Order: sequence, then C-alpha cells, then structure tokens
Amino acid sequence: MSNLLSPDLQPSLCGPLLEMERLVLRQSIEVEHWFRSQWRVHPPPFYASVDLRNACFKLAPVDTNLFPGGFNNLADSALPVAVQALMSAIEHHCPDIRRVLLIPENHTRNQFYLSNVAQLAELLRQAGLEVRIGSLLAEIAEPTRIQGQRPDGAEFSLLLEPLVRQGARLGLKGFDPCLILLNNDLSAGVPTILQGLSEQRVFPPLHAGWSSRRKSEHFEAYRQVAGEFAERLQIDPWLIDPYFERCQDIDFHSRVGEGCLAEKISQILARVRTKYKEHGIQKTPYVVVKANAGTYGMGVMTVKDPSEIIQLNRKQRNKMAVIKEGLAVSDVLIQEGVHSYETVRDGAGEAVAEPVVYMIDKYVVGGFYRVHSERGPDENLNAPGAKFVPLPFASGCQQPLSHEDPDAMPNRLYLYGVVSRLALLAASREIEATHPAARGKS
Amino acid sequence: MSNLLSPDLQPSLCGPLLEMERLVLRQSIEVEHWFRSQWRVHPPPFYASVDLRNACFKLAPVDTNLFPGGFNNLADSALPVAVQALMSAIEHHCPDIRRVLLIPENHTRNQFYLSNVAQLAELLRQAGLEVRIGSLLAEIAEPTRIQGQRPDGAEFSLLLEPLVRQGARLGLKGFDPCLILLNNDLSAGVPTILQGLSEQRVFPPLHAGWSSRRKSEHFEAYRQVAGEFAERLQIDPWLIDPYFERCQDIDFHSRVGEGCLAEKISQILARVRTKYKEHGIQKTPYVVVKANAGTYGMGVMTVKDPSEIIQLNRKQRNKMAVIKEGLAVSDVLIQEGVHSYETVRDGAGEAVAEPVVYMIDKYVVGGFYRVHSERGPDENLNAPGAKFVPLPFASGCQQPLSHEDPDAMPNRLYLYGVVSRLALLAASREIEATHPAARGKS
Repeated sequence: MSNLLSPDLQPSLCGPLLEMERLVLRQSIEVEHWFRSQWRVHPPPFYASVDLRNACFKLAPVDTNLFPGGFNNLADSALPVAVQALMSAIEHHCPDIRRVLLIPENHTRNQFYLSNVAQLAELLRQAGLEVRIGSLLAEIAEPTRIQGQRPDGAEFSLLLEPLVRQGARLGLKGFDPCLILLNNDLSAGVPTILQGLSEQRVFPPLHAGWSSRRKSEHFEAYRQVAGEFAERLQIDPWLIDPYFERCQDIDFHSRVGEGCLAEKISQILARVRTKYKEHGIQKTPYVVVKANAGTYGMGVMTVKDPSEIIQLNRKQRNKMAVIKEGLAVSDVLIQEGVHSYETVRDGAGEAVAEPVVYMIDKYVVGGFYRVHSERGPDENLNAPGAKFVPLPFASGCQQPLSHEDPDAMPNRLYLYGVVSRLALLAASREIEATHPAARGKS
Repeated sequence: MSNLLSPDLQPSLCGPLLEMERLVLRQSIEVEHWFRSQWRVHPPPFYASVDLRNACFKLAPVDTNLFPGGFNNLADSALPVAVQALMSAIEHHCPDIRRVLLIPENHTRNQFYLSNVAQLAELLRQAGLEVRIGSLLAEIAEPTRIQGQRPDGAEFSLLLEPLVRQGARLGLKGFDPCLILLNNDLSAGVPTILQGLSEQRVFPPLHAGWSSRRKSEHFEAYRQVAGEFAERLQIDPWLIDPYFERCQDIDFHSRVGEGCLAEKISQILARVRTKYKEHGIQKTPYVVVKANAGTYGMGVMTVKDPSEIIQLNRKQRNKMAVIKEGLAVSDVLIQEGVHSYETVRDGAGEAVAEPVVYMIDKYVVGGFYRVHSERGPDENLNAPGAKFVPLPFASGCQQPLSHEDPDAMPNRLYLYGVVSRLALLAASREIEATHPAARGKS
C-alpha cells in the first residue's frame, strides 16, 4: 500500500490547540453526547472523507469529500470497523434492502481508483448486501471484467456492467437494486439516466454532487458547527476553522474577476495576521485559491500575496481555469491556508503529510496520511506523486484513552476524529440546506 | 492473556454441517437481511456471550450468558469494534444518557473477573460515557480502590463505590446515572436496592437474571429461532440445535426426581442415536445435566447412560445439588451433549477448546477459545484450570469472504457469528416472553 516503511509520524500540537485537546479529552462525555444529539436531528451522510491539516497551533478540515475514493488505502485493521459501520448505515437508511448498485467514476484505467471500488464493493458484500457495479461509460455496452493489481501486489477483479433504465428505476440486466450508492461525484453534471429515480434510494443525494455542490456552502455550515462546538468548549473557533471567502464570475483566461480575488486574499491574509499575532505564531500566512466545485486537487493555488494573482503567467492561468472533466472554473473559494507540520520519514528524508479521515454513517472507520515528498508544508498535497500511509488506528479513532497524556497517539487520533466529525456534521447540515426543496423555500 | 503460544486451531466441519456452511455463505445476503428484519421486531439484548460447541457434524450454542464476564479475554484488535458496537447500543437504547452505573459481581478477589470489569468500564468510557462502578457488597461502605494485574501483566485499577438509593433512583454519592448496566447475574436473587427503579433504565432487565431466568426457556426460544432459520435454508435444524428436556422438583441429596432424570436422559439419548444413524455419525451420544438457572460451569454433569444417575455417589450428588451463591438446585436442564472436536496445541500437547462469542447490540465483536487441557471432547470446559485464547478475528466475525473456500478461517468464523446471533435472537425473544407483564398475560 505504500513504499514508505515504518513511517515516523509526529502529529504534534502546541499552544492553544494543545489546550483545546486537553479540554476535548476532559469533556469527551459531553462531546459524544452532543454528537449523538446532533445525529438525531441531522442524520450523517452515508459516507465521507475529510482532509485535515495540522499546523500544530491549528487543526482544521480543508476539504470534505462526499464520494470518498480511497477505501483501498485504509489499513486492514480498519476493515471490521468499516463493515460494522456499513451495517449501521444500512440499518438506519434502508434496513429492508438486499441489493445495492454501486456507480463509480469513469476512470477505468486508474488502478488506484479501481482498487478503491473493489474494496468498497467487498465491504458492502461483507455487510450483507448483494453488490453490482454499474458504469456510466457509454463504452461499457457489455458486462466487462477488469483485472487489476493493488500497489501492495494483491489482485482484484471488477465486473462493470451497463446501466439499464426502466421507467423510474435504474438497474442492470437482471438486477433491480433498492439502493444506488454513488461513488461518482457528478462533476460533469447529473446524467439523465440518474434523474427522477423516485422509486429507489440514491446516496449521496444528487444535489450533493459537484454539479451543484459548492465548497463555500460546506464551509459556511462548518463555520456554524465549529462555532457551536467552540462555544461549548469555550475556545477560539479559529483554532479549528479556516477563514474563507468566495469570488464568482471569475474568468482566469481573460483576467475577469482579479479584483475580487486580490481583495478577498488581502482580507483573509490580514485577518490571519491578526490571529497569528494574538496567538504569538511566527509563521507566514497564506491562502489557498481553489475551484468552489470540484476535487482531485485540480484548480488549486497557494498565494502569499495578492499581487501574485495579477502576475499569473499563461500556464498558471490555464491550470486554474479548468478542472476535472474539463469544466471551466468561474466560482472560486479563497481559504486560509493551514500549514501542515506533520511529516513522514522515508528512505529519502522527510515528506510532508496530511491526514485523511474516513467516516461511514456516524463512525470514524480509519484513515491514512497523504504524503508528498516534493511539496512543502504550505502546499497542496493532493497532487500527482502523492503516496498513502494508513493512519495508526490500532485502537481506533473513536477511543480516547482516559489514562494517557494528550500527546499519546490514540488521544491525538481521537481529536482528529472529533474535528472530522464536525465536518461530517457540517456536511449533513449543508446537504439539508441545499436540498432543492429547501432552496425553493428560501 | 494466555500461556498458549501460537495456538493451532482446527475448527473443521464435516458432512451435512459443511454443506450447511456452504448454504449460509451462498445465502449470506438473505441471512443478513433476515437478521436485520428480526432485530427491528426483537431488539437485541445490550450484550451477551454464547458458548458454542463444534462437533464437526454439528455446531450449536450450549449456553447464552446475558451478563458476559470475559471482556478481558478479547483480543486487542476486537476493541475498536466493541467500542463502536457500544456506541450503537447506546444510540438505540438510550441516546440521551451521559452517565452509566456498572454493577459487577461480588468477586473482589478474582483477578480475572476484576480485569473483565476494568475492560468493560474502559470500553464504555471510550464509547463516550461517564462510568462508575457500584458494588452490592455490604463491606464496600467507602469508595474502595482495587489494584490488579491481568494475566498478560498489564495493571488495572478499579474504584468500587457503595450504592446509594434515593426514592426510585439508584446511584453513588454525587453520581446520578441514567443507565444501570448489570454485570451481576442476580443468582442470589434481586436485591431490594435494585427493585422498583422506575426512573432509570436497567440493562439487562432484572427478570433476565438467574433468580428468574431458566435455560429451558432460552432453549425453547432458540428451538423456534433455529427452526425458522433451518426452514429458510432447507436444512435439518438438529445440525444447530441440541435436544433438551427439563426436570423440576429434583433433590439430589434425597434422591428425589431420579426417575424423571433417567427417563429424560433415555429419551434424549435415543433421539440422538437416531440422528447419528441418519447422518452416519460414529460417536457415542451423551447428555449434559445442568442446573436450569445458573452459570460458572457449576452444577454440570456429563452422562452417557441413565443408570449413572442412580449410581451417583455422595460427592457427585453434593456437586450437583449446590451452585453459585450456595443455591440449591431443584430445576434441571438435560441437554444433548455436543462433542467439541476443536483443539488448541500448546507445549504439552493438544487441549480441547470451545469458542465463546461476544456480542454487543446486534454485532459480533469478538470472542475467545475456552481451553482445558485436562478435559475430554465430551466434557464441560467451563471449569477451574480453563485458559483463554482470543479468537483469530483479524477480519471480524461479521465478514464472510465471498472469494474463499468454506474452510477459510473468516468463513468459519462467520458461521460461528451466525449461529451465535441465532442464540442472541433467541435471548431477545426469551426476554420478551418472560417479561413479568407478558407472563401476567399468558
């Protein structure tokens, strides 16, 4: 799964964040009670993954993925917990079902992604469901067997089948599922064949796909969640919440909207400088500019000064202008950059790492470090060349150790799990707020 | 945790049982769907453990414990799953709670049992609850710290506190719990201090304690569950269900009731002989005579011929007449004996083993082998000298491997998990049927 042997992880915390961790550990009963009460009102998404950044003085989610694509990177020891969480998700969302149709992304040549699909399908089978895989690709006109090999050498095999639409139901030839589980983030829009499936359950709901989802709406919901959580703990919400702003109607090619970008970048940098001063942090603030819809680390840029926006060369503009599926970027999120001071040591030296936490239903089931040896602590690690090291969840992310010090790994992972679940709760509220019916009302 | 290094477990199946396992694996989707539908009507007990016996041609529960006392014997790798299952149990039974009062047995000198209590309390804490331990012992008049050492050398510490009853509520000084979790099986009757707690939730319910519970009622419920399951799979229910009969008003001291015992033993042996012939099994049938209420392997006897009952000497009579807490035995279960052909190899040779499967809420969370080097395959292993080896649940008991052969360990453990959950379902129905209100009706 990784070429990095014996990773030397040092997820340290300092200053006010270390104090916050102590508070969270001390009040974990209240924290868990609050989560339980929140899930009753805001049911968690079926699954999600959260990219965290740990700057020692700050720990925050920077991306929440509702179509997680790295189940293949979980440690083997995480799989029983994942199966049990899937059983719980099924029990809550759809206890009466037997058959699930999994719809993956269209990358039929990406061995990493395909092994994720194979892993997810196997976990669903082990949770007691009949699973088949339907492809949105027009070229899959016949059931097509794909053989692959995981980075660790294990072989896998997938059968991709053409989708069959009949009236309001979607299925495969001879397979009429009760649940349609999307592992396709709908970046290219919602295909007609997925629309109006009124008789089947579709998770995540279509409006959670990137054709309509906006990161700014997620982080708006997260700001509220983090605010409520921080108030309960009597901490500064900034410790877990990155500032963000949004610019719309941007055209990187024709340099439309540069004014908005430069202004928002200035504003965020100024606010971060104030916070750094307040907490005595000797670091250079930066912001991350990224497409407000989309994923795969495309259309992402690190900026330390607003003037950089004006000075972008043609190549840089092109890189920002287009993301996955060739979509043009006109809606942009400007997010406070959170340094990553976690490193993984490999043969060649230290590489910057960021934790990615996986959740199914309301449970943290595992995660991994995304590691990039050619990127700095203030850069996006979700880029070609990234490697993955399973998080050392030997005792699970849900278990604080009441008798150990806050620096103990299980307690650090517990804090990661808490912050990730705050993002999960934000995603739940975001999906509620952006439901077409809810939008119609407002 | 065990002196037995590298156990060489050989849980083999043969004949019709191997065929049944293939059916269960092939129909695991229907099996899991059926369990889900059953749990909606018959919610699972908070926790339970099931003693299984695997005779190769037959796999059956022989005891279902609603106050499991071996959480200390679970493998470390089972703990994350156990914590998650506790979170699920709390969510179902009592999502609004924060504080739980754990009431253990009164064995303050049994290091094995105390480390079970410490483990259970820690798991509950990790599931997000405030846990304190209240003792029924009159000698615990002050909070009393007990230090102990687990067989593996790890130290533990417990604070036992005196119970405080106020009106309809039970608690400790300065601690008002919402949930009372019994790990005390109430063999000695329901103490007054536990009666009439109308404002708090008590799990398991008081009527599930041995002061009113009867094994025969459990196995009556199990017979129905196993029958329904066998009908779905079109198998002989005897493969998973031991015959049993009951004799009441027995007095071993004064030899009252020997006629009933001898007659029922004869009947069961005859029926088992017929089954052995039907399935071509070349073994000597036997029955196990045990107290219909009670546990700890006390008051248990193996019989191969009814004449043995008449020939019991004084010592044997005394052994059968009295069980835990000095209670006299007058109500007896006569159960078909299920040979145990599982062995664990240690330095000294082979020792007979039987699996004990642990469940929390509806989830199989782990288990262990109870191993006894001085007992034969047709003897009770729950006796002084037993050792414990964690079950190799590396990938969990809930996960069949669709791509491996039925003899693969995960598939064998999956079958163990299925049969254990049948016993769990029987316990749920038993607790419903024996509820004082339900009894009043019938």
